[in-house]
Amino acid sequence: MNAPLDPRATTPAAKRPLRFVHVVIVGKYQAPGARHVVEEIAQFLHAQGCEVSLEQQTAQNTGLTDYPSLDVPGIGRHAQLALVVGGDGTLLGIGRQMARQGVPLVGINQGRLGFITDIAFEDYREALCPILRGDYQEEARALMAASVWRDGHCVYEATALNDVVVNRGAVASMIELRVEVDGRFVANQRADGLIIASPTGSTAYALSAGGPLLHPSIGGWVMVPIAPHTLSNRPVVLPAHCEIALELVNGRDASANFDMQTFTSLLHGDRIVVKRSEHALRLLHPVGWNYFDTLRRKLHWNEGA
Amino acid sequence: MNAPLDPRATTPAAKRPLRFVHVVIVGKYQAPGARHVVEEIAQFLHAQGCEVSLEQQTAQNTGLTDYPSLDVPGIGRHAQLALVVGGDGTLLGIGRQMARQGVPLVGINQGRLGFITDIAFEDYREALCPILRGDYQEEARALMAASVWRDGHCVYEATALNDVVVNRGAVASMIELRVEVDGRFVANQRADGLIIASPTGSTAYALSAGGPLLHPSIGGWVMVPIAPHTLSNRPVVLPAHCEIALELVNGRDASANFDMQTFTSLLHGDRIVVKRSEHALRLLHPVGWNYFDTLRRKLHWNEGA
Amino acid sequence: MNAPLDPRATTPAAKRPLRFVHVVIVGKYQAPGARHVVEEIAQFLHAQGCEVSLEQQTAQNTGLTDYPSLDVPGIGRHAQLALVVGGDGTLLGIGRQMARQGVPLVGINQGRLGFITDIAFEDYREALCPILRGDYQEEARALMAASVWRDGHCVYEATALNDVVVNRGAVASMIELRVEVDGRFVANQRADGLIIASPTGSTAYALSAGGPLLHPSIGGWVMVPIAPHTLSNRPVVLPAHCEIALELVNGRDASANFDMQTFTSLLHGDRIVVKRSEHALRLLHPVGWNYFDTLRRKLHWNEGA
Amino acid sequence: MNAPLDPRATTPAAKRPLRFVHVVIVGKYQAPGARHVVEEIAQFLHAQGCEVSLEQQTAQNTGLTDYPSLDVPGIGRHAQLALVVGGDGTLLGIGRQMARQGVPLVGINQGRLGFITDIAFEDYREALCPILRGDYQEEARALMAASVWRDGHCVYEATALNDVVVNRGAVASMIELRVEVDGRFVANQRADGLIIASPTGSTAYALSAGGPLLHPSIGGWVMVPIAPHTLSNRPVVLPAHCEIALELVNGRDASANFDMQTFTSLLHGDRIVVKRSEHALRLLHPVGWNYFDTLRRKLHWNEGA
Repeated sequence: MNAPLDPRATTPAAKRPLRFVHVVIVGKYQAPGARHVVEEIAQFLHAQGCEVSLEQQTAQNTGLTDYPSLDVPGIGRHAQLALVVGGDGTLLGIGRQMARQGVPLVGINQGRLGFITDIAFEDYREALCPILRGDYQEEARALMAASVWRDGHCVYEATALNDVVVNRGAVASMIELRVEVDGRFVANQRADGLIIASPTGSTAYALSAGGPLLHPSIGGWVMVPIAPHTLSNRPVVLPAHCEIALELVNGRDASANFDMQTFTSLLHGDRIVVKRSEHALRLLHPVGWNYFDTLRRKLHWNEGA
Repeated sequence: MNAPLDPRATTPAAKRPLRFVHVVIVGKYQAPGARHVVEEIAQFLHAQGCEVSLEQQTAQNTGLTDYPSLDVPGIGRHAQLALVVGGDGTLLGIGRQMARQGVPLVGINQGRLGFITDIAFEDYREALCPILRGDYQEEARALMAASVWRDGHCVYEATALNDVVVNRGAVASMIELRVEVDGRFVANQRADGLIIASPTGSTAYALSAGGPLLHPSIGGWVMVPIAPHTLSNRPVVLPAHCEIALELVNGRDASANFDMQTFTSLLHGDRIVVKRSEHALRLLHPVGWNYFDTLRRKLHWNEGA
Repeated sequence: MNAPLDPRATTPAAKRPLRFVHVVIVGKYQAPGARHVVEEIAQFLHAQGCEVSLEQQTAQNTGLTDYPSLDVPGIGRHAQLALVVGGDGTLLGIGRQMARQGVPLVGINQGRLGFITDIAFEDYREALCPILRGDYQEEARALMAASVWRDGHCVYEATALNDVVVNRGAVASMIELRVEVDGRFVANQRADGLIIASPTGSTAYALSAGGPLLHPSIGGWVMVPIAPHTLSNRPVVLPAHCEIALELVNGRDASANFDMQTFTSLLHGDRIVVKRSEHALRLLHPVGWNYFDTLRRKLHWNEGA
Repeated sequence: MNAPLDPRATTPAAKRPLRFVHVVIVGKYQAPGARHVVEEIAQFLHAQGCEVSLEQQTAQNTGLTDYPSLDVPGIGRHAQLALVVGGDGTLLGIGRQMARQGVPLVGINQGRLGFITDIAFEDYREALCPILRGDYQEEARALMAASVWRDGHCVYEATALNDVVVNRGAVASMIELRVEVDGRFVANQRADGLIIASPTGSTAYALSAGGPLLHPSIGGWVMVPIAPHTLSNRPVVLPAHCEIALELVNGRDASANFDMQTFTSLLHGDRIVVKRSEHALRLLHPVGWNYFDTLRRKLHWNEGA
């Protein structure tokens, strides 16, 4: 993209100084062959001049001992970049923790490309080389700070990158939730459940339940009812600067899910509160990356009839 | 409706012989004031010349002792008509049992009219008078005969008027079901669950999950996925003469619901099989009743913008 | 399928007598290379012992003169089977005419397989051989007999295999249609338009507008509003034995479409009436064909995430 | 709302100075009885100490000559507030012009309350009194600046408050649009049409076509396909700071609509470009007004089953 006009381009990328010196590798824990993959990438980074560490569990699971291992706070103190090897789920799992540390992430996918892990394993060398030297596109993904309140006390806290979901019990019939935004009554919703999804989560469960796609730069969440009793209870896009509260009015065995973390046995009167987290996930992409290319590929747009 | 041409009309309705001599009353069990309502209707029927019985639990709950009480088999042997006082739920509950006995039902609703209980309590005299003497529209509502199979054995059987639903557990993520129709593979569906709804059930849960309305005379069921992973997994209307089998391939704590009856703890490999029941619910309506009037009223069509 | 028990199977298929002696070929008119394809199939049929004709326009367009050409009535009098070479559109076009003649059709598709043209060109020999000798699955697809009425007179008649659509004008805002079924008022619908689709048409435009899939053996049509003003105006599956009438109450430049045939400039008060045609399309498939295989392939079910 | 702590509250509202001295009244042009209503409100404003003008066409249509009449530029120069008497359509019509002038609007509705005209005629005195003296909630509604480009030249410009819609012709089949955002390819969409709706327009046509509701403070538009050929072409919420371009790739007689203004006869290659307008509609509401109250009322949420 206009490379000749870019002063950096006059120096071959491989000769430019590293933008990220200390890189930590995070691998999908149970994946077979993970050891080999992590080792190969570590050697590549080392050859590029990087200082390489392994995230603690990745080190344990792969049994690799040639590189120092770091726990999450250690990553925050020492690493400048986290390389995540795995799928979207792996990146989301570690991403919530890295966001708090301010460490940017790059996702390398061994299988089908994901919505946020967009470098194929076979391309990692060509993709990482410029990123390590500062040629990349950075994108911030908003996180939700959620909490559960009972009798005026906070009894649970969690951070979610994808969504906060309040669900009915397995056998029970629908639940009723009183929805408030910034203290103002919105509606009592009767449904199987209610999803509050971030732009990142808008391509996941919320999409299955009938929600729209939200571009990552939209400062909002989408609230999507699951099988709502009232047909006009449509998805609503709410500003991320609001405080959304969902109070359980009716229904047995309801639970609240924050990405994959769960708070079970909600009682009537419990309130699930969602706000924007002060942290955001920093995602690095190769130059030329385009959110819409990802959507088009993942949703099979334009593949003919 | 061409009344002058109807030979019956030359005789005032009240003077014509009864078409239904023995009428049993079924009341909503826990409704306050049920005793008074049941008693009033019983007296009205008696005054019309009917022999009146009370369904056993209705007799117990209201404490009325002036009329004989009948259990369900007794109703089948003796009663010619069942008058159900309550909402759609009450009628569906007793309706599954009456279908087996071949006894027709009339629904009288004390609150908002339902989809199948279409006589308002304040109109019951005008509505029942002609019905008792044979002026009515009869409608048959198909029932589903469902069963759960494990290791080749039937471990549960149930009849459903509304729907058969296979659901994921409260906390678990989606389930995967292998769908077969008459032994032929349809698809593996990954979703929160799957609904097989009758025309009667098409206005209930299936509608919330995105299904179409099925006219009661359609010989089919609609299969509606709940929050399906694949966006092209759309509702499918299947012939009622088919045998539909849903096999649990993946997912924890899944359960199967048959109207409000539940079979919990489905195991991988369990098969839920749905066929058309040999019985059907016989519903009687006042002459002039029209299914579309009910839809229009319940779904608030044509109420302006 | 239990071939050893089938007495026909004791005689090799190729030795059994022809079930269809006179076969007519219908080709996609403007397709490049059509001449070669039609000629090859004609020679194959001839070698099988069939008498071969070409549909009149197919003969003209390909310039083939070795075979007699037949117009549509001629096909009805002489041919026992019509082989359609092309896509779903080609088969639908000729299918409406063949239905009236009672001639069964087989569809051979040169490109991507369609919903109803399910024999790939490269497989036509293996697929046709048993069909010609009587080993096939026959399926009937219902047709709609539609008409437009103005001031009590029928001003247009058409047959539709896919759908009857009443549409607003290009620039105008929504139209309002009064819907009646068997003379009973259903609702006034305000929308961009209204689709009445057959099971065959349920995989086409109606699906895009939010309708369900109807199995071909369902005796019904689905009525699907396009962008309805009232959110509870959901798709309704209506019995095919009904007479559906759509009366234009409001809206300018509305038109009615019957498959691809159009009646423009509807006036307020015009009525579009849809009934089941007395004719049905007879489709022949190879033994083992399964409607659900077609759905799964065309809708990309089970292709992974 | 903490009234005792509000210094203004120590002075009765009616005694406080006017925040808006010069008020212009805009009336629904063809409404019967408009003259009487406009006159009554004008007298009320006069009694409150306001200088009152009538919008030019309102003056002509009502025949009222007691007040000066102003054209749109005159309103921009002289009036501090525009009082719109009518429904949402009336307010949207004048609103596009007032936005350019920076004049805030208040909507008084004679019929059913609208989404943006939220003062009932019978309440106008109580509602206007505090607003005129500065007690109100102000809300900005974003406008779209749209244009049509042909062969590199801008051939049409329009401002839209609700939506920009590209539509197929009345009789033609679907159109194909190439969608780009900030010059990046998004997808080729085949559909009946495509809607780009503002938060204000998200409760109108876009909702009928399956779009979500956007809270007015969301800085985005929602792009909603109408009856899309590809089922995964779901609504997408795009940032308002983007430039969205829709290029007609295929389809006859397509047109572009900007609120109710139309540009017909689009040619292949024509581009419709949508950006955020530098102007916004300023809406004033009574203190305590709540967007969600409006949604709940208009969409009939919480009205029971």
